[in-house]
Amino acid sequence: MAMAYDPNNIFAKILRGEIPCKKLHEDEFVLAFADINPQAPVHILVIPKGAYVSAQDFGARASAAESQAIFRAIAHLTEQHGIAATGYRLISNAGVHGHQEVPHFHFHILGGRALGSMLTRS
Amino acid sequence: MAMAYDPNNIFAKILRGEIPCKKLHEDEFVLAFADINPQAPVHILVIPKGAYVSAQDFGARASAAESQAIFRAIAHLTEQHGIAATGYRLISNAGVHGHQEVPHFHFHILGGRALGSMLTRS
Repeated sequence: MAMAYDPNNIFAKILRGEIPCKKLHEDEFVLAFADINPQAPVHILVIPKGAYVSAQDFGARASAAESQAIFRAIAHLTEQHGIAATGYRLISNAGVHGHQEVPHFHFHILGGRALGSMLTRS
Repeated sequence: MAMAYDPNNIFAKILRGEIPCKKLHEDEFVLAFADINPQAPVHILVIPKGAYVSAQDFGARASAAESQAIFRAIAHLTEQHGIAATGYRLISNAGVHGHQEVPHFHFHILGGRALGSMLTRS
């Protein structure tokens, strides 16, 4: 996976307001919005506002405050959308083997029904 | 999902040294070790040393330093195990709908082969 950040990826355009989104949370460091192709009754995308390609890029460069903001947003969103008690799954895909579709670090929050097994062979 | 932390869960026992693990990373805030039932060629578990049940519990209570340590460990481990370039998937399961098996917040890092689709119906 190339580590250079592509400023024309779809999440960068959403962050710049060039593409609309259904915003569910925003703070200084994080934006969260509804996935346009939901895989579960609750399917939220959580992204840092900073330009990070993937989890390892975020982990190598993000500040402590940016890191905490991701987890705080997840806590807030799972409570707000009623899935903290029933359960959910966080997923972040990276690179070719992970089938990463947008080269801007993001977590999927999936919930609202019993999810399938953790992963399957392709 | 009950939010009370069970100090007798298996990861708490690993953190106390009562159960062995194949340690892959350790710092002030984080421990990482090989999954004993690997679902992919690389299957690493990353856990905070603090007593957090789930992602939302961690997000509600963890410090900025603890939060950053999780992402730094992920960055370090994906590089160290040769999957940063090829790709991987991070998963954290919570509660009944997420099929969480151990009630101590953890990320799975899965890589080393093309992974399956992001989630399937159970």
